[in-house]
Amino acid sequence: MHHKVVIIGSGPAAHTAAIYLSRAELSPVLYEGMLANGIAAGGQLTTTTDVENYPGFPKGIGGQELMDEMRAQSERFGTKIISETIERVDLSSRPFKLWQEYEEEPITASAVIIATGAKWDQCVRGVRRGGAHIQKKPLVVIGGGDSAAEEAMFLAKYGSEVTVLVRRDALRASKTMAKRLLAHPKVKVRFNTVATEVTGEEKTSGLMTGLRVKNPKTGQEEHLEANGLFYAVGHDPATKMFEGVIEMDEEKYILTKPGTSYTNIEGVFAAGDVQDKRYRQAITSAGSGCIAALEAEKFLAEQENEEVTGGIEGESEARKPKENGEAPEYRSNPLL
Amino acid sequence: MHHKVVIIGSGPAAHTAAIYLSRAELSPVLYEGMLANGIAAGGQLTTTTDVENYPGFPKGIGGQELMDEMRAQSERFGTKIISETIERVDLSSRPFKLWQEYEEEPITASAVIIATGAKWDQCVRGVRRGGAHIQKKPLVVIGGGDSAAEEAMFLAKYGSEVTVLVRRDALRASKTMAKRLLAHPKVKVRFNTVATEVTGEEKTSGLMTGLRVKNPKTGQEEHLEANGLFYAVGHDPATKMFEGVIEMDEEKYILTKPGTSYTNIEGVFAAGDVQDKRYRQAITSAGSGCIAALEAEKFLAEQENEEVTGGIEGESEARKPKENGEAPEYRSNPLL
Repeated sequence: MHHKVVIIGSGPAAHTAAIYLSRAELSPVLYEGMLANGIAAGGQLTTTTDVENYPGFPKGIGGQELMDEMRAQSERFGTKIISETIERVDLSSRPFKLWQEYEEEPITASAVIIATGAKWDQCVRGVRRGGAHIQKKPLVVIGGGDSAAEEAMFLAKYGSEVTVLVRRDALRASKTMAKRLLAHPKVKVRFNTVATEVTGEEKTSGLMTGLRVKNPKTGQEEHLEANGLFYAVGHDPATKMFEGVIEMDEEKYILTKPGTSYTNIEGVFAAGDVQDKRYRQAITSAGSGCIAALEAEKFLAEQENEEVTGGIEGESEARKPKENGEAPEYRSNPLL
Repeated sequence: MHHKVVIIGSGPAAHTAAIYLSRAELSPVLYEGMLANGIAAGGQLTTTTDVENYPGFPKGIGGQELMDEMRAQSERFGTKIISETIERVDLSSRPFKLWQEYEEEPITASAVIIATGAKWDQCVRGVRRGGAHIQKKPLVVIGGGDSAAEEAMFLAKYGSEVTVLVRRDALRASKTMAKRLLAHPKVKVRFNTVATEVTGEEKTSGLMTGLRVKNPKTGQEEHLEANGLFYAVGHDPATKMFEGVIEMDEEKYILTKPGTSYTNIEGVFAAGDVQDKRYRQAITSAGSGCIAALEAEKFLAEQENEEVTGGIEGESEARKPKENGEAPEYRSNPLL
């Protein structure tokens, strides 16, 4: 089985890529996976009850519902969705080879879009940021790095006080950030502390009133009053099968040329959280899926044109990302 | 009047930024403009009858309707929308100064997001790309540059033949591309030709059947059979008031660090088509608006923290884009 383009993933990046590629009549095949990476098809959004910041839905939309709509849109334009997991790839030569779980024979593809996402390192459940319910209330931030420090000082503008829970006995944050955090009048840092349970009306109103914490060394437990809980701990990109194959950073996020979906392998594109540890929003993920589709489309058209016209030397060079990391100029059709 | 953050624009980038900033309680003020740049509030999308590729709407949504929804969402979370046009700015020092049309006194802002868009250089109206109605039909592409050549060869896969209309008597495209275009068996290039009118059932079914063309030198007219029309001519970014103020490329697009919204001025961010000549989709534009909001939020938090803690030397350096063009690492809250 050969496909022009295979998309691996099931979140906003994967489906946006599928919508664009199917509309461009490239017959994309999307492997949404069967609990791939331990998450149901649809990705992390399916664990979010209410998405209020995805533009276009002023009343909010359920995370599962939004993903159902995107999936329906992919299918409407002809995307073939397969509910199996890709477990192994060979991207060393074209056509690329991909193995489905429980299958011995690989499928092949001229182009691959990786949109396998990242999993939050969730130890307990949290509540939404922003909104009146955190104003002048005690808040808790989990994490000991720069992002936790930033988050805590940011939240200190709103809450009555912010407690930072650090699992170890030291901050991972940079010296400067650590100094600022420890000096902040509204921030308290608790070392050797992990959260074990959210207490309060979480199930009914979605608001929490407290948090049970524990010292992992002594096992001693305690209850903190808290009306908001924020994570600033690591994410876990779903890139295991691409290790040693695609260039990644030290946290195993796939490296793309900034502002594009280009990986180090021509014909392999990455979109969404699997290559984004900065923004990680449904809307930025969808945007990057669109970019991957346009770049894959361009790549495939180039391959096909080379077949038609016999190709001209030097041509494919012009389409590669420039050395400064910029993508080659791409003018998509304004009337798409 | 001082605002924390002012957004200039009214399209998907502007409203996505507004949604994020208002949810972060930064009281954004959005100047949607009064026919700014000759386009109604809502931007270019409002001229599109049916948007089928914005993820989340499997049945499609009207361009105007989508923008109405985004505007409602911005307002819901507290964005102040002003239907006036900003006509002049002074970004040489902070707070930034912005002048509304017909006002002598400027408003001031700690941060500015530019999302003023770009206008298509529309000489005649077109139809949508993709879909059965262009299969094996005669198609027309307008433009003589690389993008026109690419578009024509791409469309040649679908149409029965593709005619490229070039206003002048030569192609602007690179030598390689021009050679390939002229050699393509399904492409015909007509020099000294401009389109003057679309004919057919455009008003009822949205499908065209032909195109009137003219030789601009001799004035001679002709009628071409055509069922699809595609532009690959220049866009016109709305950046006049930023000339000499913000770094732009030779086509007057605002330069941002790739993959971010950072302009050359700290505290001034750009999003959407005004800084994107490659992808130009509603979804990529919205994604970039989100990025601008997160980066503006970060910038404002940094300013405020410096006031609270007195600031530590070297700190703000750490937040600046790195020299390789990458943004500083930004971990947004996964539970936003």
